[in-house]
Amino acid sequence: MVRLKSPGHERLGQSGLLEMTFGGGEANVAVSLAGFGHQAGFITALPQNEIADACLAELRRFAVDVTDVRRCPGRMGVYYVEAGSNQRPSKVIYDRDQSCMALSGPSDFNWPVLLKDAEWLHLTGITPAISESCAAASIAAMKAARNLGVKISLDLNYRAKLWNWGKKASEVMPSLAALADVLVGNEEDCQKSLGIDVASDVASGEISESAYATLTESVLEQYPNLALVAITLRESISADHNNWSACLHDGKAFYRSCRYEIRHIVDRVGGGDAFCGGLIHGLLTETDTRRAIEFATAASCLKHTIPGDFNRVTAAEVEKLMPGDASGRVQR
Amino acid sequence: MVRLKSPGHERLGQSGLLEMTFGGGEANVAVSLAGFGHQAGFITALPQNEIADACLAELRRFAVDVTDVRRCPGRMGVYYVEAGSNQRPSKVIYDRDQSCMALSGPSDFNWPVLLKDAEWLHLTGITPAISESCAAASIAAMKAARNLGVKISLDLNYRAKLWNWGKKASEVMPSLAALADVLVGNEEDCQKSLGIDVASDVASGEISESAYATLTESVLEQYPNLALVAITLRESISADHNNWSACLHDGKAFYRSCRYEIRHIVDRVGGGDAFCGGLIHGLLTETDTRRAIEFATAASCLKHTIPGDFNRVTAAEVEKLMPGDASGRVQR
Amino acid sequence: MVRLKSPGHERLGQSGLLEMTFGGGEANVAVSLAGFGHQAGFITALPQNEIADACLAELRRFAVDVTDVRRCPGRMGVYYVEAGSNQRPSKVIYDRDQSCMALSGPSDFNWPVLLKDAEWLHLTGITPAISESCAAASIAAMKAARNLGVKISLDLNYRAKLWNWGKKASEVMPSLAALADVLVGNEEDCQKSLGIDVASDVASGEISESAYATLTESVLEQYPNLALVAITLRESISADHNNWSACLHDGKAFYRSCRYEIRHIVDRVGGGDAFCGGLIHGLLTETDTRRAIEFATAASCLKHTIPGDFNRVTAAEVEKLMPGDASGRVQR
Amino acid sequence: MVRLKSPGHERLGQSGLLEMTFGGGEANVAVSLAGFGHQAGFITALPQNEIADACLAELRRFAVDVTDVRRCPGRMGVYYVEAGSNQRPSKVIYDRDQSCMALSGPSDFNWPVLLKDAEWLHLTGITPAISESCAAASIAAMKAARNLGVKISLDLNYRAKLWNWGKKASEVMPSLAALADVLVGNEEDCQKSLGIDVASDVASGEISESAYATLTESVLEQYPNLALVAITLRESISADHNNWSACLHDGKAFYRSCRYEIRHIVDRVGGGDAFCGGLIHGLLTETDTRRAIEFATAASCLKHTIPGDFNRVTAAEVEKLMPGDASGRVQR
Amino acid sequence: MVRLKSPGHERLGQSGLLEMTFGGGEANVAVSLAGFGHQAGFITALPQNEIADACLAELRRFAVDVTDVRRCPGRMGVYYVEAGSNQRPSKVIYDRDQSCMALSGPSDFNWPVLLKDAEWLHLTGITPAISESCAAASIAAMKAARNLGVKISLDLNYRAKLWNWGKKASEVMPSLAALADVLVGNEEDCQKSLGIDVASDVASGEISESAYATLTESVLEQYPNLALVAITLRESISADHNNWSACLHDGKAFYRSCRYEIRHIVDRVGGGDAFCGGLIHGLLTETDTRRAIEFATAASCLKHTIPGDFNRVTAAEVEKLMPGDASGRVQR
Amino acid sequence: MVRLKSPGHERLGQSGLLEMTFGGGEANVAVSLAGFGHQAGFITALPQNEIADACLAELRRFAVDVTDVRRCPGRMGVYYVEAGSNQRPSKVIYDRDQSCMALSGPSDFNWPVLLKDAEWLHLTGITPAISESCAAASIAAMKAARNLGVKISLDLNYRAKLWNWGKKASEVMPSLAALADVLVGNEEDCQKSLGIDVASDVASGEISESAYATLTESVLEQYPNLALVAITLRESISADHNNWSACLHDGKAFYRSCRYEIRHIVDRVGGGDAFCGGLIHGLLTETDTRRAIEFATAASCLKHTIPGDFNRVTAAEVEKLMPGDASGRVQR
Repeated sequence: MVRLKSPGHERLGQSGLLEMTFGGGEANVAVSLAGFGHQAGFITALPQNEIADACLAELRRFAVDVTDVRRCPGRMGVYYVEAGSNQRPSKVIYDRDQSCMALSGPSDFNWPVLLKDAEWLHLTGITPAISESCAAASIAAMKAARNLGVKISLDLNYRAKLWNWGKKASEVMPSLAALADVLVGNEEDCQKSLGIDVASDVASGEISESAYATLTESVLEQYPNLALVAITLRESISADHNNWSACLHDGKAFYRSCRYEIRHIVDRVGGGDAFCGGLIHGLLTETDTRRAIEFATAASCLKHTIPGDFNRVTAAEVEKLMPGDASGRVQR
Repeated sequence: MVRLKSPGHERLGQSGLLEMTFGGGEANVAVSLAGFGHQAGFITALPQNEIADACLAELRRFAVDVTDVRRCPGRMGVYYVEAGSNQRPSKVIYDRDQSCMALSGPSDFNWPVLLKDAEWLHLTGITPAISESCAAASIAAMKAARNLGVKISLDLNYRAKLWNWGKKASEVMPSLAALADVLVGNEEDCQKSLGIDVASDVASGEISESAYATLTESVLEQYPNLALVAITLRESISADHNNWSACLHDGKAFYRSCRYEIRHIVDRVGGGDAFCGGLIHGLLTETDTRRAIEFATAASCLKHTIPGDFNRVTAAEVEKLMPGDASGRVQR
Repeated sequence: MVRLKSPGHERLGQSGLLEMTFGGGEANVAVSLAGFGHQAGFITALPQNEIADACLAELRRFAVDVTDVRRCPGRMGVYYVEAGSNQRPSKVIYDRDQSCMALSGPSDFNWPVLLKDAEWLHLTGITPAISESCAAASIAAMKAARNLGVKISLDLNYRAKLWNWGKKASEVMPSLAALADVLVGNEEDCQKSLGIDVASDVASGEISESAYATLTESVLEQYPNLALVAITLRESISADHNNWSACLHDGKAFYRSCRYEIRHIVDRVGGGDAFCGGLIHGLLTETDTRRAIEFATAASCLKHTIPGDFNRVTAAEVEKLMPGDASGRVQR
Repeated sequence: MVRLKSPGHERLGQSGLLEMTFGGGEANVAVSLAGFGHQAGFITALPQNEIADACLAELRRFAVDVTDVRRCPGRMGVYYVEAGSNQRPSKVIYDRDQSCMALSGPSDFNWPVLLKDAEWLHLTGITPAISESCAAASIAAMKAARNLGVKISLDLNYRAKLWNWGKKASEVMPSLAALADVLVGNEEDCQKSLGIDVASDVASGEISESAYATLTESVLEQYPNLALVAITLRESISADHNNWSACLHDGKAFYRSCRYEIRHIVDRVGGGDAFCGGLIHGLLTETDTRRAIEFATAASCLKHTIPGDFNRVTAAEVEKLMPGDASGRVQR
Repeated sequence: MVRLKSPGHERLGQSGLLEMTFGGGEANVAVSLAGFGHQAGFITALPQNEIADACLAELRRFAVDVTDVRRCPGRMGVYYVEAGSNQRPSKVIYDRDQSCMALSGPSDFNWPVLLKDAEWLHLTGITPAISESCAAASIAAMKAARNLGVKISLDLNYRAKLWNWGKKASEVMPSLAALADVLVGNEEDCQKSLGIDVASDVASGEISESAYATLTESVLEQYPNLALVAITLRESISADHNNWSACLHDGKAFYRSCRYEIRHIVDRVGGGDAFCGGLIHGLLTETDTRRAIEFATAASCLKHTIPGDFNRVTAAEVEKLMPGDASGRVQR
Repeated sequence: MVRLKSPGHERLGQSGLLEMTFGGGEANVAVSLAGFGHQAGFITALPQNEIADACLAELRRFAVDVTDVRRCPGRMGVYYVEAGSNQRPSKVIYDRDQSCMALSGPSDFNWPVLLKDAEWLHLTGITPAISESCAAASIAAMKAARNLGVKISLDLNYRAKLWNWGKKASEVMPSLAALADVLVGNEEDCQKSLGIDVASDVASGEISESAYATLTESVLEQYPNLALVAITLRESISADHNNWSACLHDGKAFYRSCRYEIRHIVDRVGGGDAFCGGLIHGLLTETDTRRAIEFATAASCLKHTIPGDFNRVTAAEVEKLMPGDASGRVQR
């Protein structure tokens, strides 16, 4: 997807410049994983034009394999974003209708072939939100992965503005959740996508640890295929200042991560994807689940300091933060 | 329409910046006319979002009345452009499918009311190209104008990439031409939109004056409602260097304008619209048709020196060029 | 007025770029009001050149009516600004001498005609500060407004660097205050323009509510024509971090608004004008004075997050903040 | 003087950026001379503010001695410029009224002290144009220089928009010319400042060598103090394309320089000053007058390729061009 | 190599910005070939730091395989460039001493393994110029290629400023030429690297076809291993305006390509590499040598229109130019 | 040294732009002192190219005398920097090997002549770190200064990445410290350069006043030539938020300065040099040592708000902050 951002803290349309980058849930996760040293590929559908070429080139830059991207009729999805500040929230305008991906369906991807050498499949709740055929393609991918023994993670990623094709998220997402091994979401995602509530106050940002333990247990109970459920916890003090942490239940125990106070947010779009990328890396490389969640949270914390959707950090940088050395001293 | 241009001579996607301006055939003509001191309004359909708000604000900046713009579901049309250079041609990528205007039809505009105080209506061949309902809305507007005695100009503006809704330009445009008072086009427009050929070689850019006299006479003969037909003549030496002139037949005589050698093109998009704006101004304010065509050609020549779709010049600046003082001395 | 700002946190003259925008007390208020949906006009005097044309175009962009702006000999006022940071204060250099407005006097504006359809007239203490004739023109405007029953608001806006034409603010402003219905100022304004003190410590930023209740009562007593006096309260922690609130006495009661902690100021110039624009909107549309002051304070709070003098916000955005939802969550 | 230019070929006010540099006739000449290795100083009057500080810093950067600049009440002069293109001329808007220099008079400069170690004094016709006191100060400087045996060059530099203080250039400049050793001007300068015509057609740009020989002889005859008169010859094909040469009479013979075709002008403002700087250097270092004029013309030719008023070239670069090696091969 | 260019036509150090891209002879050729659809790899030595990482990422973006790049102690080579204009030549400042590649020698690359699946090896005369060990590594690579039957092209690419390690180009390059199948150079390269002269006048740019036929024949005679020698012909009218063509002898016949007049050069650095990339593509895909040289010349012509070292064009774009359609009409 | 910074908070290599400025320990101190009104000179070695010319020009801009800079073979040192944010630290990549200064030794500078009119000599621990000959040159300079009675300050400035020439800092720096009158450093500097520890926890940032009193006393004891030792105290909360203060022992008493909370760091590189510049100014102009340390700390605090290495502030601005007026109110 093309991401068009007004510079700095300008409002959309204020000046004559837009920063063009590329982004989108699954792509962002692929970039994270490639940055941590994994072989990562990205599968989507794009039109046959120079803008789409530039998108593929950008992903290649991060060593993401894009050879399986489908080129077909349709548009390139676009989203406009302006960065909020203080009491003014950030704003996203989606322009994704009729994108190549929205027009794609299950018959357009030969999942058993595409996934045959894969170890892990990651999907987000944004894909099934954009069209009925996309929802069907998502389920087809997950079924093919299960057949091949490929692990599946699903980021619920509820976006109210996108669910316009006829069904509500809560009518669709449960059947995806039922196919996943790892589920990621925040409280609102669980509520809007799975209908599972937690007894806390999102707006205030106050978080009760026991409420989240209960939430993750409920999810694991209702979706017995799940090995693990992770919940991200964003406390939004202002558009520039969020506290960021996560918790996780791996069927055995409930963990709460470090909590990072991020007081000068540079770009928070892609923070959730950075968490997913970090979590998959953690689960693939660590034996201690607690370290996986700490890696994911630290990776995502660093994403907030980097312009653009992509998390341009190495595993070493994340690990340096994990023990909590966040003093920001110059390295020289 | 949002216009997204890569900076300078960069290829699309080369750098992380895009210049965002607004443009489009009829809007460009409205800006020209407002700049020459006329009361100009622009009628279209736009979505209810901040990008469309910015488009309207930009038109207001040029004193174009946008109070009659329809806000409705649909997208904002987008086009990407990169500036060519030397032997490398400029490139335009349209992303206009499902735009609000494409989804609009004749019942969406109350033309008799919208045009009731108007003196002149201008349309381009781009509008009927984008959808069947747009074509119908265009014809409805022209019929309403004729009923009210409002003069009509039509710029044929053939765009091969846009005629995708089922009919060819040559099946639609003749019925629009039959309703116009003033017709503007280049040789290719006449051929592709009206099926009327001229015996010259576009690629070489060599222009035979008599061939064009014959062409304009043929058009006037076939479309007896037309009071005047103007043909723009672009000789393309390279992407930076064009020669630009025009000719016209007003039923009485055939005129050929001055020919401007434009060796350092800054931005040629909108050049044809600048011609139309200049021609309408000329026909409204001059008694001598020859002066109208000279004004139109000079106005359009200056457009090539200004970044963006809009022709940011005053009538005085155009008139200063008309007699041929193009030496470019500093005014201080 | 042309506003020339060094980019980001650069010192003036540090780099070769200046950001050119336009601003000035009354213009900023007009932009605010137009943004909230009111018909707003701006009256001033500008030279006949392209810089002044650009200023008018910019105001038109925000739907401000500029048809009554006088074009006459003289300069375009300029001010240079650099944004402070942390312990380094922002700096403004005025270059307004001999501006068209400074050279204008009461006979240059036919106020009874200019104001005949107006509902409200807004003036600031900056206009009478720039020249003796400007002070006279200001008083003439206010008298004409009173005769026509047009409501008048006056923002005291004391600027020490500007009162150079021979009289002190305290010798001139009382006669303006005596003609107003609504008075706006901060503590220093009241002291320097009206000679009315409050017993608090501006530098420390500590604010005693009762002291302000007393201050507003004193003002209302001394200026019996006033229906309402509003005081803005800026607590300046650093150049990036201010707390912002306001209080008001409407003759019946004293109210104190919400207090906004603004920790990452983007641009605070124009904050007071945003308050005035919000207050006028509130008084015109709300029956509850308390809501008017809350709207004004919230509008002004948002201004601090937007580059440039103008408050590019809608009434809906301000209202969304008013109840206090300032968590800055992304809207998507 | 502050120079504010719209970027690239944008019209003034088109975008939100201005390029801020510094410039002005005598300053530009000083920078040229310092660049050629001479000890150069600049004397003017500037206000006590950060913008003026930045101007002095910029001159220091080029090793121009600014220790004798007067700091006093008044404004910093400003000029806005937009670069023309093709048939659209460049445009300059002066905003110099009430500048510190305009307010300065002969008593403000102690010329005998300021010039005591000087070898050469350069003045332009812009200084006497800005105010009566400036004209008087100019004459005082020249008289002091003559008394000290300091050589004097005068660039006539006629600017129609500036002569507003009551006298015409032709009433003032002859008394300055009568004090100079070296006079520089173009044809229009001679006509408007000294009333001496040449029989050629400026607009067409056609240049008759003999006419210029006659012109220079007339000037030398009327101003017997002059040792040398140089005329610059600009043939303006378009705003991007000028031919540039010069001629000179040193009392003994008439010479015509090389003629440079400059087809892609980057910035022609300051071209005349670059000529003067080159001429003074040539006269100070060369025994052959013909080489002096060739150096001056080549230096000025190079100025057209450099953004800003200042001619950022070394004597070696100019000399490399002089024999005519203008093929522009990369030096690597 | 890091390429640091001052923006637009600014002189180096004029403003506070540099455009950072990456480039270098062999890398540029690899990017060209990848752009034409070939599998291209790039072998060099780079330090272990973030700047080198960015270089590799940029090459990956163009689908160049960089997995065999050596990471080792040493610097990243840098070159500074400013774009000339008109009579002012472009300037390159090399800062390549002690680069990782300069410190590398034949034992650092296992050529038989690195080249085992290769079809073609391309080298330039820049690599042997930078150090003695680099020269040895170059020869080792060529010998390994010959043993494996990999075709070899050598671009002589003489750079006077680089041959500082003790031997002259003419003492080293002949032994490389003796190992190549295809040789590319211009007249100066042949003279300075191989000691083979042509009887023409480089400075004047006048080119005698027969002289070049003779030159190519001499080269083929002296280097019997060569199947083909190609000479690029740059006529330098000014820094903005070059004419560009090439000729070639394939042992059977001498061909002269089309000649392109490039009047508005955007960036000519990398033009020779674009020629080599085009030539290799032509030789790999065309049976007609004449078409290979036409493809190479057209590809290189287009490079002059694109900022940066890399030739961002597709084979289709080059082929579109080859028949000579260089009118630069907008594609829309 | 050339400083190349990625814009804003971008990672190195993220976008195609770098901000080029100049900096380096001793140069930064010279700029500070010149800004406070002292005659300051800078002595180093630079290559004979345009990048070095630009560096000298930039220093001249700040009125630093660069006439004694040596031009010789070698490179211009470069350092790349990216600004950290929140939990992400800033990063510096040095590219200084083989710089002209690294290649210079004691015989390249005639210190007795160079220092003959000097009052003060300032050196940093960076110079002896870059090469053995540089270390020798540093000692030679200090000895010459002592002989001439020139006061010497030494900033320990330990840089782990730079000490690569064979000796450790702790083997070299004590002999420099033994020659100085004033010593500046932080805790880590004292430990790594002089082997003198303090009993506190740098990472936590907690500072025990008595520990620092003891530290300074130890230093004074071991280096009896020292009249004064100053320790800077940086508490690093995050990359954007540091607390900054300093302490000092002048042989008579131990003082602790004000502590500045800097919550929105703009650019902290050069903060230590700004402290040294401020301290030297304080010691030269104040009789009260306590005021000297307060001036130094306030000057350094302001540096954190200004982009680039140089501290662009006046003594008046520093003094305005000293008493603690850091509320950041706009000055207008």
